[in-house]
Amino acid sequence: MTATIHHLERERAPSLEPLMALVASDMNQVNSVILDRMQSEIPLIPELAGHLIAGGGKRMRPMLTLASAKLIGYEGERHFKLAAAVEFIHTATLLHDDVVDGSDLRRGKTAANLVFGNPATVLVGDFLFSRAFELMVEDGSLKVLKILSSASAIIAEGEVNQLTAQRKIDTSEDRYLDIIGSKTAALFAAASRISAVVAERDEETELALDAFGRNLGIAFQLVDDVIDYSSNSATMGKDTGDDFREGKVTLPVILAYARGSDEERAFWKDAIIGHKTSAEDLEHATALLRSTGAIDDTITRARHYGQRAVDALGTFPSGTARAAMTEAVEFAISRAY
Amino acid sequence: MTATIHHLERERAPSLEPLMALVASDMNQVNSVILDRMQSEIPLIPELAGHLIAGGGKRMRPMLTLASAKLIGYEGERHFKLAAAVEFIHTATLLHDDVVDGSDLRRGKTAANLVFGNPATVLVGDFLFSRAFELMVEDGSLKVLKILSSASAIIAEGEVNQLTAQRKIDTSEDRYLDIIGSKTAALFAAASRISAVVAERDEETELALDAFGRNLGIAFQLVDDVIDYSSNSATMGKDTGDDFREGKVTLPVILAYARGSDEERAFWKDAIIGHKTSAEDLEHATALLRSTGAIDDTITRARHYGQRAVDALGTFPSGTARAAMTEAVEFAISRAY
Repeated sequence: MTATIHHLERERAPSLEPLMALVASDMNQVNSVILDRMQSEIPLIPELAGHLIAGGGKRMRPMLTLASAKLIGYEGERHFKLAAAVEFIHTATLLHDDVVDGSDLRRGKTAANLVFGNPATVLVGDFLFSRAFELMVEDGSLKVLKILSSASAIIAEGEVNQLTAQRKIDTSEDRYLDIIGSKTAALFAAASRISAVVAERDEETELALDAFGRNLGIAFQLVDDVIDYSSNSATMGKDTGDDFREGKVTLPVILAYARGSDEERAFWKDAIIGHKTSAEDLEHATALLRSTGAIDDTITRARHYGQRAVDALGTFPSGTARAAMTEAVEFAISRAY
Repeated sequence: MTATIHHLERERAPSLEPLMALVASDMNQVNSVILDRMQSEIPLIPELAGHLIAGGGKRMRPMLTLASAKLIGYEGERHFKLAAAVEFIHTATLLHDDVVDGSDLRRGKTAANLVFGNPATVLVGDFLFSRAFELMVEDGSLKVLKILSSASAIIAEGEVNQLTAQRKIDTSEDRYLDIIGSKTAALFAAASRISAVVAERDEETELALDAFGRNLGIAFQLVDDVIDYSSNSATMGKDTGDDFREGKVTLPVILAYARGSDEERAFWKDAIIGHKTSAEDLEHATALLRSTGAIDDTITRARHYGQRAVDALGTFPSGTARAAMTEAVEFAISRAY
């Protein structure tokens, strides 16, 4: 099986490199805004924020803002601040997620809440979130503010929805898609869309970029869900089996449960309410995910959304930007292999 | 001793009633925005938010927005949404504070995090915070957005600063005033100021209302610090002695420590690092706060800021609004008795 999306052909494995090269110079500008605006007279704030921000995430979301700007030929500089705002919103949600999930690792490092405690982690998240809005206000576009404040509310709703679904084996695929559409894809969509706003392009352009980001976000999350059952903490930068132990009902589990025998369903019910947390249980779960085709079909679903992301770019001129964005989608899916 | 501020004379004890009566009809509008905008398709969100919002806070901050609007004769309706946004920001910080402090009671009810858990409490705080920005964006004033996004960042900085000062007996009065100026007074100031912005009054008017709110906020917090050593959970709606047990170095403690004998200082050092948490210890602490005059002088400091708040209103026409706002300041201080 290969991760290549059908109508594209390439010799080498898909990579994020072309996208990173496309935006490298602009990303320096964004990084300098990030470093500048995470400062505070209260030393713990840059220290804690820096733990995560300097911790070397891919900066996927600001990359989408920058790449979208390249795609539509935007020549200005307003999107640097806005891309930083997007990354601050994302960082704030990661910090709060660490408190919510109690995960041990984040980006291969000890999670911020375990180093600095839950209280400081919550509050620095709030600080970064406020700073994100200050950056947007400085830019001055009410339309961007509307897109990103709405995305932020939707992210929080998605997170609460996920929390409510936790340990509920009867979560439906529809509900799960709602959850990841909110908690992950909404910010991917907004990050891509805002470039069209600052570039003053038409509504269709905005919506196409929104669709690109949204579908990529869903594909990205589905692949993350697969990786949580197949990676190890060294390559992934987070714990394998976290979702399993936390009773998170992700798409692989939903499919394996739907397709399982009575005995297998009994296992999943027990596991998801927290009665199966050993390494052997995780191994058994992973075996079931493979034998039922749940892993393969989650990847197939991811590929479906990836293809929609690629097709959303169809009306844009072909060239370096579009090729890099397309390959980024393929790369996102290839991580599952 | 009476709480009356010197140049004002009144037979009865100061009350919040005149302020509440002044804004009662407008507050109905604000409450309906609050109830409408805390809704979500995810049932846990209105449930958790309602626990605190319907829990009957005084709505002090939106009252300031509404009263300031009356004071300057604003006839429009834009401030209803903005007052709701202010209350959402405040509610979000209270929810996050409950997680940060681990307090048992809030407004006389079990704290939200103990009913719904820390994860949901953090996330619903994030949701309300995002909703606050959505409301501001709907209003469309970039100036209001700037004032409130900046206040939000300052609040978070103040909270982190307080966290860093926790269990540090050598916290100075200056640092403490910085902390409460950020964590409490910044939102009082912003809440009062934004009415002048929507009413399109001049900069001086904005700054006068800002000064009114800021000084009232400091007075309010100082009195809260006193109450934490002298009230009981039935009248106050939160636990007495919380600050003491959590090792929060508030102004009463700073003064008692500065004025204490070697033996008394040794007690405070032990207490603030967490080695004195019994009911007897709290009683001893309260006795020291009284014998050193720390309680009385914290109230005197509060009265100083209260007087500055009242004087900040000096250039506004006298009338019902100004009288009600003045009495609200006196009321805030009278709570210490």
